[in-house]
Amino acid sequence: MPLGTIFLSEFLGTMFLIIFGVGVVAVNLLTKSKGKGSGWILISFGWGLAVFIGVYVAFRTGGHLNPAVTLGMVAAGKTEFMPGIPVTVETTLIYIVAQFAGAIVGAVIAWLAFKQHYDAHENQAEVLGTFATAPEIRSYGWNLVTETIATFTLVAWVLLSGYTPSGLGPLAVAFVIVAIGMSLGGPTGYAINPARDLGPRIAHAILPIKGKGGSDWGYSWVPVVGPTVGGVLAGLVCGPIGPVLSAGM
Amino acid sequence: MPLGTIFLSEFLGTMFLIIFGVGVVAVNLLTKSKGKGSGWILISFGWGLAVFIGVYVAFRTGGHLNPAVTLGMVAAGKTEFMPGIPVTVETTLIYIVAQFAGAIVGAVIAWLAFKQHYDAHENQAEVLGTFATAPEIRSYGWNLVTETIATFTLVAWVLLSGYTPSGLGPLAVAFVIVAIGMSLGGPTGYAINPARDLGPRIAHAILPIKGKGGSDWGYSWVPVVGPTVGGVLAGLVCGPIGPVLSAGM
Amino acid sequence: MPLGTIFLSEFLGTMFLIIFGVGVVAVNLLTKSKGKGSGWILISFGWGLAVFIGVYVAFRTGGHLNPAVTLGMVAAGKTEFMPGIPVTVETTLIYIVAQFAGAIVGAVIAWLAFKQHYDAHENQAEVLGTFATAPEIRSYGWNLVTETIATFTLVAWVLLSGYTPSGLGPLAVAFVIVAIGMSLGGPTGYAINPARDLGPRIAHAILPIKGKGGSDWGYSWVPVVGPTVGGVLAGLVCGPIGPVLSAGM
Amino acid sequence: MPLGTIFLSEFLGTMFLIIFGVGVVAVNLLTKSKGKGSGWILISFGWGLAVFIGVYVAFRTGGHLNPAVTLGMVAAGKTEFMPGIPVTVETTLIYIVAQFAGAIVGAVIAWLAFKQHYDAHENQAEVLGTFATAPEIRSYGWNLVTETIATFTLVAWVLLSGYTPSGLGPLAVAFVIVAIGMSLGGPTGYAINPARDLGPRIAHAILPIKGKGGSDWGYSWVPVVGPTVGGVLAGLVCGPIGPVLSAGM
Repeated sequence: MPLGTIFLSEFLGTMFLIIFGVGVVAVNLLTKSKGKGSGWILISFGWGLAVFIGVYVAFRTGGHLNPAVTLGMVAAGKTEFMPGIPVTVETTLIYIVAQFAGAIVGAVIAWLAFKQHYDAHENQAEVLGTFATAPEIRSYGWNLVTETIATFTLVAWVLLSGYTPSGLGPLAVAFVIVAIGMSLGGPTGYAINPARDLGPRIAHAILPIKGKGGSDWGYSWVPVVGPTVGGVLAGLVCGPIGPVLSAGM
Repeated sequence: MPLGTIFLSEFLGTMFLIIFGVGVVAVNLLTKSKGKGSGWILISFGWGLAVFIGVYVAFRTGGHLNPAVTLGMVAAGKTEFMPGIPVTVETTLIYIVAQFAGAIVGAVIAWLAFKQHYDAHENQAEVLGTFATAPEIRSYGWNLVTETIATFTLVAWVLLSGYTPSGLGPLAVAFVIVAIGMSLGGPTGYAINPARDLGPRIAHAILPIKGKGGSDWGYSWVPVVGPTVGGVLAGLVCGPIGPVLSAGM
Repeated sequence: MPLGTIFLSEFLGTMFLIIFGVGVVAVNLLTKSKGKGSGWILISFGWGLAVFIGVYVAFRTGGHLNPAVTLGMVAAGKTEFMPGIPVTVETTLIYIVAQFAGAIVGAVIAWLAFKQHYDAHENQAEVLGTFATAPEIRSYGWNLVTETIATFTLVAWVLLSGYTPSGLGPLAVAFVIVAIGMSLGGPTGYAINPARDLGPRIAHAILPIKGKGGSDWGYSWVPVVGPTVGGVLAGLVCGPIGPVLSAGM
Repeated sequence: MPLGTIFLSEFLGTMFLIIFGVGVVAVNLLTKSKGKGSGWILISFGWGLAVFIGVYVAFRTGGHLNPAVTLGMVAAGKTEFMPGIPVTVETTLIYIVAQFAGAIVGAVIAWLAFKQHYDAHENQAEVLGTFATAPEIRSYGWNLVTETIATFTLVAWVLLSGYTPSGLGPLAVAFVIVAIGMSLGGPTGYAINPARDLGPRIAHAILPIKGKGGSDWGYSWVPVVGPTVGGVLAGLVCGPIGPVLSAGM
């Protein structure tokens, strides 16, 4: 597949992911939103369906939408991301750059869709909260542990379950995202994806949001490092385990 | 396919869509409804499942149920709406007329199912709210932006993901509708479909609803123009992108 | 298929349907239940999944679980309920008797699972409400209209969408049931099935429930007649429409 | 399949099940969790998706994750747990030991992900409640009845519906778990799995949880014996029924 096509696919998929992901938090938090206060079930389903949509759009490149998934596959020793897309330094970088670029653009589009509600909203920590994650109990070490565990489960699931026969397509991974939100999202808001967190945070820093506060750069490395470590760890551990399990069949 | 059959299919599908769509808002809002106050999760799932049912009923014509989808396909340069249904001025018009007719009849049936609850309900803005959408912060320009973005995502998804292999059938697009509600529905209530909004609004104007207020014709053009623009834009942009992405496979 | 096997299949399927259907209302209503007060989303999903389970168990006979579906197929002029099960007076009666018997037994089992919570519950209208439906605004005529419309949509969907290709299996009809609850269940609690309502009502009348009140026999005919009329009407209308739509393909 | 591979598969699957299962209760209960107070819909969906993930991971061994399922299959007279895995005393024991081991490790990982929230939480009955089940109305006899009925429905569904054609894969059993939570979980919190309850309870007893209370060993036998009896009963009853039903097709 041409490198430009790989870029376009992951860019569009991550853009859609973040339009819907930022959107669902905006629906839940912003002033006068019709869904204000719907709570954690809305958040976890909304992010799951955001992944559902993004993976459909980017299915031709495997729908990673997430550097932790891409790097997890590298760590697992995969030779192709998809049939026709070899794992090289070049393709790996294109995946990751496209994911960050798509995340930034997606956050801008979501902000436009809620423009008046952002203008009307006074709590600037919540405004930032629609773009990027923040922990409930700040402690970089333990926040890293939570993000690492949550991302490990995601990438391990991708690597271990890859060959199960079913007709669910992108719905399967969408439900895994719903589950991670429902079960492991309580402490840090489950970035589990460096592009999902840093991309919109950059958009927050750039956009002319009315009366906006800081972008909490002090925390910003945690949802980048934690998911990266979790994804690579899952690749190193589950890369060898998958074939062992399947060899027994 | 005979033109009358096309009409019947889209008419019935949109009729079912609106019975369930108007119904879920009535369940959530009307006096003494058993589901009163269930909130945004009920609304977003309910409308998604309304599309699920309607697409099943109208699957023989592709289950558009929405002029924005039909026009998006025209703008994308499709030559057939479905195998055996060529894209012509005539078929396009039949799709759209059938969608509006089905929406009006569907709203009448939903009203009958809740007749006593409509009679008992005093807040006439909420009565209208079960039929047609209204923005939380009225500003025709920004409301148009929101409706355009939301409909763009819907039609772009239809055009870009069309060939993903999965066994979900109409459930896939149903989940996209759930996602649009959860993530982009907060500002305007996500018409994303001219027939879904104008059809029931006409029914509201015609029906002998006890003590009813106005039908808010001042806003009525926004959920017609926004979705139309969003759908056509998605067709123009994604019509060419889809083949580019797939050519790379 | 032997008549006894038909009986066993529909009996078991309806028994499971009612264990889970009565159960979800008990979880939502009874004193000290862990899910008390979860509301309409729990109810509508719970009943949908109850159908999901029941249809899986009774899939060999088509998983009707509902005399309105069985009679709708008769009215539609079907010659077989399933391949190998001809439509005759005898098979029709066996379906229906099995459905009522399964519903009664299922209600007894659900009562046992919640025995202590029934004993502790004082509001006897709510105790009856876990077994049988009741309208929010009592008016036999309009309650009939609501039940007829809701059941019409169910049976029409079964008849019109029957040949859509998808891999959802019983999940498709389960989501239709969720949708009917969410969108049309507000006024009467959506019996949409004579066996689902009358069977558990009979169980309520028979069981030695501590301090129980009446079984509301005055209303009991509505959720029998409404669904029967709706199902037969759908069969008469959609029986001929289905082939017309499909002939156009 | 080598015995070590069977162990690894069931160990990993149950570990994932419990990470997500303990996690969802922690999200719902623990101090400062973002999803605190989401309630029973979160719990029932979360546990269903926990099973979804676990079954995918352990699909090569059938994804039992539950001694009640394994023993139910033995009681039903199955000769193979999966093609290539004969039912013997040895394989049965390996399934069960792997399930308990995975459950203990999964609970430890979930505890790490919520470490600070456990430290901050004062109600020690709720801390235990994230690990193991407890009844709302304590009465060993009736609690046994509830657990037995709930597990019976699970194992009966597995045995009776096994050959239904659909493309849902592990999603089908996940929805059955959601349904059991929604419909039968109110009285005892639905262990329906000896490993799911006893494994995390052992973890609770071992872990250095800050200020922890007792592990409620007095009740601990109920969610072991009830599910075991329910599973074996379902095997004895449905083992013979399944072939009878299918013979009629």
